[in-house]
Amino acid sequence: MATVALADDAESDPRVKAVFDDIRATRKTDFINNMWRALAFDPGLLESTWADVKALMATPTLLDPLTKEMVYIAVSIANSCSYCIHSHTAAAKAKGMTDGQHAELLAIVALAARTNHLANGLQVPLDPQFDMAARPQ
Amino acid sequence: MATVALADDAESDPRVKAVFDDIRATRKTDFINNMWRALAFDPGLLESTWADVKALMATPTLLDPLTKEMVYIAVSIANSCSYCIHSHTAAAKAKGMTDGQHAELLAIVALAARTNHLANGLQVPLDPQFDMAARPQ
Amino acid sequence: MATVALADDAESDPRVKAVFDDIRATRKTDFINNMWRALAFDPGLLESTWADVKALMATPTLLDPLTKEMVYIAVSIANSCSYCIHSHTAAAKAKGMTDGQHAELLAIVALAARTNHLANGLQVPLDPQFDMAARPQ
Amino acid sequence: MATVALADDAESDPRVKAVFDDIRATRKTDFINNMWRALAFDPGLLESTWADVKALMATPTLLDPLTKEMVYIAVSIANSCSYCIHSHTAAAKAKGMTDGQHAELLAIVALAARTNHLANGLQVPLDPQFDMAARPQ
Amino acid sequence: MATVALADDAESDPRVKAVFDDIRATRKTDFINNMWRALAFDPGLLESTWADVKALMATPTLLDPLTKEMVYIAVSIANSCSYCIHSHTAAAKAKGMTDGQHAELLAIVALAARTNHLANGLQVPLDPQFDMAARPQ
Amino acid sequence: MATVALADDAESDPRVKAVFDDIRATRKTDFINNMWRALAFDPGLLESTWADVKALMATPTLLDPLTKEMVYIAVSIANSCSYCIHSHTAAAKAKGMTDGQHAELLAIVALAARTNHLANGLQVPLDPQFDMAARPQ
Repeated sequence: MATVALADDAESDPRVKAVFDDIRATRKTDFINNMWRALAFDPGLLESTWADVKALMATPTLLDPLTKEMVYIAVSIANSCSYCIHSHTAAAKAKGMTDGQHAELLAIVALAARTNHLANGLQVPLDPQFDMAARPQ
Repeated sequence: MATVALADDAESDPRVKAVFDDIRATRKTDFINNMWRALAFDPGLLESTWADVKALMATPTLLDPLTKEMVYIAVSIANSCSYCIHSHTAAAKAKGMTDGQHAELLAIVALAARTNHLANGLQVPLDPQFDMAARPQ
Repeated sequence: MATVALADDAESDPRVKAVFDDIRATRKTDFINNMWRALAFDPGLLESTWADVKALMATPTLLDPLTKEMVYIAVSIANSCSYCIHSHTAAAKAKGMTDGQHAELLAIVALAARTNHLANGLQVPLDPQFDMAARPQ
Repeated sequence: MATVALADDAESDPRVKAVFDDIRATRKTDFINNMWRALAFDPGLLESTWADVKALMATPTLLDPLTKEMVYIAVSIANSCSYCIHSHTAAAKAKGMTDGQHAELLAIVALAARTNHLANGLQVPLDPQFDMAARPQ
Repeated sequence: MATVALADDAESDPRVKAVFDDIRATRKTDFINNMWRALAFDPGLLESTWADVKALMATPTLLDPLTKEMVYIAVSIANSCSYCIHSHTAAAKAKGMTDGQHAELLAIVALAARTNHLANGLQVPLDPQFDMAARPQ
Repeated sequence: MATVALADDAESDPRVKAVFDDIRATRKTDFINNMWRALAFDPGLLESTWADVKALMATPTLLDPLTKEMVYIAVSIANSCSYCIHSHTAAAKAKGMTDGQHAELLAIVALAARTNHLANGLQVPLDPQFDMAARPQ
């Protein structure tokens, strides 16, 4: 189920086809996952989303590709996005994430969630030492 | 403000003192941040929380220390834990996170949040290719 | 799957039947969606929930019906309520939401999520200009 | 700071005064906390909110008063509502919550958050045994 | 679907078998639900998770078993963990939660969510009366 | 407090100055709120964030400006972003949101949160009628 139609002929729209072709070329695969098929209901939204995902996740940047995927998974878990957890876990595994690294990622996410809830429950006052705004640059 | 008292004499309890001493020894600093001072209202909760934070975040494991802090920050942002965002950003900077890495971390967290909300809004159906449970091991 | 039974004969309870009849009359349809069938496990919870949904969402108020549905969808996405996203997107479409409006709604939700995470990650200090409590009335 | 004015003379509106009087009578105190002062910017919203809070939280029901406050705190922590965590922790303490019970409440909230993130990260498939909808009534 | 394989022969690993045996002995049932089967992909994560769940949820503590399950459900709902909502609702029912108690639990969770969003939307300033950190102990 | 320095001389960087000048020109005010001052620690992040906020929120699109701000506020409340709630409530008021509209917005957000938590707590099964993916286009 989805809240928009996933059209089989989405690529009859040249803007959609251009994005799908770029996804295939960038990822070196014919597989277009459902996220993009769903976004194709609005070519503008598809274009802007893919452009930004490509720029950050499919292009060399400061952080290494696997670290980026692990951060992405962490956010997706905390935001309870089932689709994103699946797709980015698959992406991280494709980029070499081992079972041991996966388990440690989940352990850190779970530990952070635990202390997030403790700190919020205690309403811990901020230590002035943490204030970057007050520090000399 | 906090939901528990942050006692000035918390270390008069030997269990609290033992944890605080271990925090100081492990982190090589005299600074005990408010999270631990707040948790000291219950020595058992303080002990179990510190034991697990120490084992994962203050001990060499598979992932490097900075990656672990970045994952921690990502979860804390998504869970809106103000204290945790401050404390772990400070920790990441202490472990060498540059402004460029910080900016990229925030960009990935923001991109993930954006696509999390898009995927949830579209209720994108899972692609069978993502199913790890069905794969031969 | 559900955490309560969805009874086929829920309307044998006159309180449930009265609510279902009012839903049918208000919405001018015979379709009772599963939300109400599930809530029927407790007639009091069903009555109070429907009364408040009807008063705000099925009655003319200050905001127009489509705006109200779009706000409802936005909250449901951020809270990751799959059922609510589906049901209120269907409701918004029934009230005339076009694909273009749907795409723009999702774009705004995604932009807000992105800046929410940025502002939380940066822990941006509040500008005193935003303080409504301090303003003369 | 607040997004609405907290008027000193809010009770010059008879609808606001009636609610504030009922809060004072119900709680047997002159203290009107800021939640109600803020809601007073719209008497209708103030009335409906207080009516429902009173009916569930200030009236004997199936669950005992302290259990209800602890559930309220748990939800407020997970939703990161700083004000609600403070006000309901104070309410729970006023109803007899000991430091030991408070610590155990926080430990359960933290454990739940931890396994919530693990289960979401693993995308654990539902066991058919959990399906209440399928069970004979 | 899951992000890890749920191995049929997980118990061929003696560490997994030891945990599963302890789950069966503690719960007095042969049923091992999928949460543990999924966690078995990493014996260390399985061991530490079960140890802490057992200590808090399957051992007599200050709070009674049903209250603990209700708090757990409340957090799981707010964090939108579908699996956890199902498994802990089933556990609460096994511990005697009636339909009336279930309905009241949901009503409180819903009321808390409602006032959480109101208080956050209004950005209600904290009342100094709520500050436990400032109180004499 | 913030996790980055808010530099007084941020505009000595020409990229920052160009964005700040565009904010001033677009909004017809000299006021640069702290969100942009904080983002200025990384000119690239500042540029991309402002470009997208400007394109959607400060440019005529399908939805009217006030509706867009109300959707933005709704998401910010659900994500518990204190800064965003303040800044976008101020923006909505500047665009004409009355107290009555504000109260109704908050009432809808609170109602959605309430039914989000009910639907998640009940794990209401999706009605096939909501499936847009299955509908003929």
